Amino acid sequence: MIDRLIEKIKKTHAPIVVGLDPMLDYIPEHVQKKAFQEFGESLEGAAEAIWQFNKEIIDHTFDLIPAVKPQIAMYEQFGVPGLLAFHKTIEYCHGKGLIVIGDVKRGDIGSTSAAYAAGHIGTVAVGGKTYRPFDEDFITVNPYLGTDGIKPFVDVCRKEKKGLFILVKTSNPSSGEFQDRLVDGRPLYEHVGEKVAQWGAECMGESYSSIGAVVGATYPEMGKILRKAMPKSYILVPGYGAQGGKGADLVHFFNEDGLGAIVNSSRGIIAAYKQEAYGKFGAEHFGEASRAAVEDMVKDIDGALNQQR
Amino acid sequence: MIDRLIEKIKKTHAPIVVGLDPMLDYIPEHVQKKAFQEFGESLEGAAEAIWQFNKEIIDHTFDLIPAVKPQIAMYEQFGVPGLLAFHKTIEYCHGKGLIVIGDVKRGDIGSTSAAYAAGHIGTVAVGGKTYRPFDEDFITVNPYLGTDGIKPFVDVCRKEKKGLFILVKTSNPSSGEFQDRLVDGRPLYEHVGEKVAQWGAECMGESYSSIGAVVGATYPEMGKILRKAMPKSYILVPGYGAQGGKGADLVHFFNEDGLGAIVNSSRGIIAAYKQEAYGKFGAEHFGEASRAAVEDMVKDIDGALNQQR
Repeated sequence: MIDRLIEKIKKTHAPIVVGLDPMLDYIPEHVQKKAFQEFGESLEGAAEAIWQFNKEIIDHTFDLIPAVKPQIAMYEQFGVPGLLAFHKTIEYCHGKGLIVIGDVKRGDIGSTSAAYAAGHIGTVAVGGKTYRPFDEDFITVNPYLGTDGIKPFVDVCRKEKKGLFILVKTSNPSSGEFQDRLVDGRPLYEHVGEKVAQWGAECMGESYSSIGAVVGATYPEMGKILRKAMPKSYILVPGYGAQGGKGADLVHFFNEDGLGAIVNSSRGIIAAYKQEAYGKFGAEHFGEASRAAVEDMVKDIDGALNQQR
Repeated sequence: MIDRLIEKIKKTHAPIVVGLDPMLDYIPEHVQKKAFQEFGESLEGAAEAIWQFNKEIIDHTFDLIPAVKPQIAMYEQFGVPGLLAFHKTIEYCHGKGLIVIGDVKRGDIGSTSAAYAAGHIGTVAVGGKTYRPFDEDFITVNPYLGTDGIKPFVDVCRKEKKGLFILVKTSNPSSGEFQDRLVDGRPLYEHVGEKVAQWGAECMGESYSSIGAVVGATYPEMGKILRKAMPKSYILVPGYGAQGGKGADLVHFFNEDGLGAIVNSSRGIIAAYKQEAYGKFGAEHFGEASRAAVEDMVKDIDGALNQQR
């Protein structure tokens, strides 16, 4: 799966991923209104608004980007109807040729991780039949439980040609509380990063592994160290834009081949129409605003990468 | 919420929780067959088999126990239909007066944790209306992201009178890989345990906090230390039975008041009919086998607690 992602990144010249994290606040009034007229002010109505919002953004950006990253929590908060919109979004993105990174941050003891892996990136058997319930291409995974909680995900990746991004150093302000604590003189996240590199050795593509890492854009110095500790791991970098990261902060997440990282922006793209810079599009044309924001983000990151060369 | 849990534990004399983790392998042939006849060998068929299996077990045990703990992964693996069975199970358990601990192990950056908290233990607004999508009473949460990933859950607990069990030391064999690493001379799980105690101070009931911890039955010596480090935190103890824990291993998870811990068993109860000890019931009467297994588990734990006194 990592080879397909790299191929698409090269083709689009865009090492970026659009985070489909549709809070209701981001969804223009007219989209919400129409959904509520049809389905009521219900969980189904919220799910419909999310789905129509996503569809418009995907339609306006799919040719510019390699991948999307729906954050499942934004769907799960609307219960089963919300999760139906999550599934519909994945299917629609696949139809548009996009790679889907399910931001699910699952992780549990072995048998339970195996069930998550089956449901999200693998298959389940029911009687004599086999299904792919959510069918993301990559998912994010939490490493707190250690190797036997991660192994079932890695096994499914190898079998099904899927991939993972394992949390190493997260983008939030208090991520250091546990992740930065020194263990044998080095922060915990470095130890986790080393494990990611080990786990990844089992799932090598041509030049990178399908087992990657999450390292926040908000911690560029740590990104630099982790880049070297996990040379074959792709790094998914959240925290660009709204969370404070900028293109220039990101160069050290990349390797010298210009690859090795993919930068996520969520609010900055999907709610672009709310920003002054894209205000001219208006809420009616929020999809076009998102397209312009994607173009600017690609320029920012590509510019920073070129300056470094 | 913790006061309600304690009241029910005292009433049933059973500091135990039944893990509703229905792998298809556990579900007797006749239940699967009936479900597949009605819904086909489909995700809906699997979900129906799970639901009918759960219902039978709940009907045979609800009067003996204070709480159940459905593991969402076992439902999520069957996609949206599976999650519908998860929701139906929660509603049915509430109807029977049971407290529901959603074993979801969620955890993310602040805004995302807030969405998970809303969906599982809080409310979401859609237009002018408000819903409780999954409506568990407690959920399990992963602490790897630190305070700002946990705080949104704690805030919802305080507002909605719900509770959490935060992963401190998990029951799986490789939990030590990161959790046991020494930070300032003490294992990481102790630092996490101290944070749990701090976070819990905001959600105190009469004598315990609604913010508890998960500590595996498989690590009794660590349970002893953590019991002292978090005197006001209830400990949810997985790993009894199938994972290797025994009643005698568990006494140190309890305080001197006989409270402070609740022990989970999943496979040992719900698949009891497959064990030699309960084989006489046969697959047809799997609910009765589960009831007998609950009675034996209560005896084992109560016996161990009495021996200690």
